[in-house]
Amino acid sequence: MKPSYGDDSPIAAFATAPGKSALTLIRCSGKGAIELAASVFSKPNELKLAAGSTLVHGWVVKKPHPCGFLTAASRGEPSPLCGSVEYTMLPKAKESRQDNCEKIDEVLVSVFRAPKSYTGEDSIDISCHGGICTGTAVMEALKACGFRTALPGEFTFRAFMNGKLDLTRSESVMELVSAKTDVGRSNAIQRLSGLLEEEINSIKKLLVEVLAGAELYLDYSEDEISAEPGEKDGILPGQNQARRALIQLQKLKAAWNSQRIYQEGITTVIAGKPNAGKSSLFNYLLKEDRSIVTEIPGTTRDWIEAWVSIEGIPVRLIDTAGLRESTDSVEALGVQRTRELLDNAEIILYLIDGTCGISGEDKAFLCKYSGSEQGVLPLWNKADLAPRPQHETKMIALSVLTGEGIAELSRAIVTAIQAQAGKPEDQSNAGQNAISGNAANENTGYGNAAWEAAPGSMRQKNLIDTACTALQEALSLAEQREPLDLIAPLLREAVNALGEITGEVSNADILEEMFSKFCVGK
Amino acid sequence: MKPSYGDDSPIAAFATAPGKSALTLIRCSGKGAIELAASVFSKPNELKLAAGSTLVHGWVVKKPHPCGFLTAASRGEPSPLCGSVEYTMLPKAKESRQDNCEKIDEVLVSVFRAPKSYTGEDSIDISCHGGICTGTAVMEALKACGFRTALPGEFTFRAFMNGKLDLTRSESVMELVSAKTDVGRSNAIQRLSGLLEEEINSIKKLLVEVLAGAELYLDYSEDEISAEPGEKDGILPGQNQARRALIQLQKLKAAWNSQRIYQEGITTVIAGKPNAGKSSLFNYLLKEDRSIVTEIPGTTRDWIEAWVSIEGIPVRLIDTAGLRESTDSVEALGVQRTRELLDNAEIILYLIDGTCGISGEDKAFLCKYSGSEQGVLPLWNKADLAPRPQHETKMIALSVLTGEGIAELSRAIVTAIQAQAGKPEDQSNAGQNAISGNAANENTGYGNAAWEAAPGSMRQKNLIDTACTALQEALSLAEQREPLDLIAPLLREAVNALGEITGEVSNADILEEMFSKFCVGK
Repeated sequence: MKPSYGDDSPIAAFATAPGKSALTLIRCSGKGAIELAASVFSKPNELKLAAGSTLVHGWVVKKPHPCGFLTAASRGEPSPLCGSVEYTMLPKAKESRQDNCEKIDEVLVSVFRAPKSYTGEDSIDISCHGGICTGTAVMEALKACGFRTALPGEFTFRAFMNGKLDLTRSESVMELVSAKTDVGRSNAIQRLSGLLEEEINSIKKLLVEVLAGAELYLDYSEDEISAEPGEKDGILPGQNQARRALIQLQKLKAAWNSQRIYQEGITTVIAGKPNAGKSSLFNYLLKEDRSIVTEIPGTTRDWIEAWVSIEGIPVRLIDTAGLRESTDSVEALGVQRTRELLDNAEIILYLIDGTCGISGEDKAFLCKYSGSEQGVLPLWNKADLAPRPQHETKMIALSVLTGEGIAELSRAIVTAIQAQAGKPEDQSNAGQNAISGNAANENTGYGNAAWEAAPGSMRQKNLIDTACTALQEALSLAEQREPLDLIAPLLREAVNALGEITGEVSNADILEEMFSKFCVGK
Repeated sequence: MKPSYGDDSPIAAFATAPGKSALTLIRCSGKGAIELAASVFSKPNELKLAAGSTLVHGWVVKKPHPCGFLTAASRGEPSPLCGSVEYTMLPKAKESRQDNCEKIDEVLVSVFRAPKSYTGEDSIDISCHGGICTGTAVMEALKACGFRTALPGEFTFRAFMNGKLDLTRSESVMELVSAKTDVGRSNAIQRLSGLLEEEINSIKKLLVEVLAGAELYLDYSEDEISAEPGEKDGILPGQNQARRALIQLQKLKAAWNSQRIYQEGITTVIAGKPNAGKSSLFNYLLKEDRSIVTEIPGTTRDWIEAWVSIEGIPVRLIDTAGLRESTDSVEALGVQRTRELLDNAEIILYLIDGTCGISGEDKAFLCKYSGSEQGVLPLWNKADLAPRPQHETKMIALSVLTGEGIAELSRAIVTAIQAQAGKPEDQSNAGQNAISGNAANENTGYGNAAWEAAPGSMRQKNLIDTACTALQEALSLAEQREPLDLIAPLLREAVNALGEITGEVSNADILEEMFSKFCVGK
């Protein structure tokens, strides 16, 4: 039978990365998890009787009886060989028997009793010795006694199903693990501590009140009052409250752009003629930044890339120097790849070799990309050897040797990112709707966004959009004094979308799709 | 001041590998570790009052007061701002204040009270969310409140100093982390559970008794009996007991060879003419084995290597196919490298292209290496296309396509490894000393060695050698009826060497040297 989300069978998974480390953590959860683990533990009774939130020290051992009578007992099923009474009466004999088993590893077991655990079920964390073989051997022992490997995100899925976390907090757990910079981590932590959940619930509360008022009015007027146009229509009780909700929603919507950038980062390509100093700049920026892990793939790609953090924004920096730049027919492939990288870049750092001056090729490049989607920053490199001409004020004078212009470059990159983030959504929407104007502008500042509620995933953002659109339509109908029975369904749509954000309203398929993107062990 | 081993200051280190995982574990230990951590914890009093072996859930927060009054208090120093009385009287106010701090991560803290902890000191394990940024942020908070980064192996060093582990078990902890195959892990686990420690102590006990008897005899005879030659000399009380000890020591000595192989592995080079099928065999062996992690460096080396497990023995397999094989002057470097790899190999798998038959080049190679240190296995490849000639019985007929000969090859590799392991020590010693003969031969079998005591490091093995040599000399003097006062010092030397193995006798420099080879967090 294929394992699936939504049951409470005992599951186990590695919770830490494999490697040559001091410890490896294996997480187990599910019905009977503690009893099941006890069947491969040197002190089974101590583990079975352990209180919640305590630690038990002992050894994971090879399962003594292949017939599995301990497993049967641990599942609470009646066992033909020994009932639970015998367990209690002969603890000494039992303990000593487990001691004779083959030892697999000396471990510390953290015991959690339902509902006081991450998942809300009985759970244990097994802290084994590190290295590749030990964790694997312990996991094998757990599987042999009845645990199955957890699906991706299954622990958090269970936590959600058992009401331990709403969906915004569930998603923030995965966001935390993937955070590339400290700002990204801080944003996720705000959501994990419930900032977004509270904000969504407070907006929903406003709308539920408005909706309740509207429905009451509809019911009341149908029963008691004759439908006089002008009295019944055009009055949305709590219209101002609905406007406040819309402003809050639009603030959230606007906040997404910066959140997205901190999560996904910005692709920045370093381009320029051969010998313009592309690799030197790449290495300089890499060396300057020690806050982010770099991943430089070697053989799989023919360009070099790494993540750097520029004022907390994760920047995926690509050096195209490895790509062949001549026009030779064999090397046309390199030229083609460079073009693809440039077209997919969000920001292009274009290096001009100061010692050669601006060539026709440079001019052609800058001209070509000046009207494009990308933010292009022209940089006058080797400024220590050849000072930048006075009139080229748009170019940053740069020297990797002296460090001149690096701070200015960082600021320019951040400004370019902000300009891009501001563009796609807010400006186009601002014209359409007067109400959104104020709210959207309030939230374009970066950095202090961490303490304001903001969506943390595209899923959340799309539902906020849905709520926003429905509410805007409802308000616009109300302003046009349309009948309430046209407005009420729109309000309900907005309320439902908000309920879906926190998971109050949910759909099994969507949940499964969402949690399967998590890592295993989470 | 440079941090050094041997103090009890509060230390912290990552205990799990960095990466995109569900959890990251940070280990802290030392005087005041719990109180110190409480100063950056959302529920400081709950943590400070927590019993040993319990878990506390909460948030790591940014330290509230840069003046550090919490730190001062946690160190037990008098604080000008608030004494410990105020803490007890106003717990509510304190708890709420920490709640207002900036949250860094939601964590689970395992609390261990001295002496019931790994190190024997007050300790905590902090289970943070995974990913790169979260662990780093929590570690920064810990450092800010007074923890210093632990030195490599410092936790285990403290465990040893506080009598929690002897040296053989301390070393096995690191051995476990580095284990490459399950047999290696199992060997280390035996030592961790004290198998070697017990064996060494039992041998030492035998020798201490013999030594005590000899010294008593010396004292007694000096005082009471006139020194009559022939009565005092030539009698070593408990001589048979000393012989038993020697046999046990020699068993341990012989066991080292197989232990070393399971730890360090065997370097095996695949050689042969171009197109003989080197890469195909390499990939086949890699694919067959799923039990061991492979590390294939890409750009740094121009040959490919990976670890495979052959019957539990870690084999470092090197494919020289990437090296240029022509005699062109530019490519001479490749030829030179291949030679170096071959000279450093323990086993060479030499592939002959069956479809071409044995060339002069093949013959020259096999002839050259037949008398060398290396075990050379000639393999008749592509046996599916061209069957091996009947008379070439020394060659294994191999086909990567059909899998023919692969099992035979595995067995041949194991036999070659055993032959090599048996060579260097035992055979040369066996001739010199009749007593060692039996013992050494008993332990040449591989695989079942896991349940017998064996040394786990070169340090231990060298000390066993020292004890062996001293004891052999003592016994040989006793057989020649030499005076006891010549024999007793040799017995003492053997006893001291054994004490050094377990750490009963120790030297600060040697300890530091030993533990500094551990990984951080262990």
